[in-house]
Amino acid sequence: MAEQLNTVIVGSKPIDNYVLAAIVLFNQGAEYIILKGRGPNISRAVDVYNALKRRLGDAIELSNIEIGSEQGSGGRTSFIKITLKRLI
Amino acid sequence: MAEQLNTVIVGSKPIDNYVLAAIVLFNQGAEYIILKGRGPNISRAVDVYNALKRRLGDAIELSNIEIGSEQGSGGRTSFIKITLKRLI
Repeated sequence: MAEQLNTVIVGSKPIDNYVLAAIVLFNQGAEYIILKGRGPNISRAVDVYNALKRRLGDAIELSNIEIGSEQGSGGRTSFIKITLKRLI
Repeated sequence: MAEQLNTVIVGSKPIDNYVLAAIVLFNQGAEYIILKGRGPNISRAVDVYNALKRRLGDAIELSNIEIGSEQGSGGRTSFIKITLKRLI
């Protein structure tokens, strides 16, 4: 699995955009997808997770959460990577 | 362990305030502390984690991360709970 192909980078667009992007990836056969948010978009990545969980319920499960910081153009930035697994 | 006693609720004050609050709890003997952030403060809770990790290094480890949503006064709000364990 190429990680990048199954990663949804959560930015400042409406939450539903990212929810739909994740559902499309699952429908295309992805077993795992990663929601990634950086800086203020960390909170929004969790919003996307909660919206997916409401919409897909037991069809997905939370597989892993990673937090940390990485070097960006403007210094170190916090990030979150939320890995979801498709169960059905 | 009373969970609330060892929880640092991350709000909109400077990050260092929460870093210091966590260090005080560890110095008072807490083995585990929880950093909790809600809504937009989720990102800031991760900032506090990264600042603590830079400052305390191997003296602490990430024990657990929980994400979800809870009912607040203004509808459902996303949250994160980051549990840190003191190693030394």
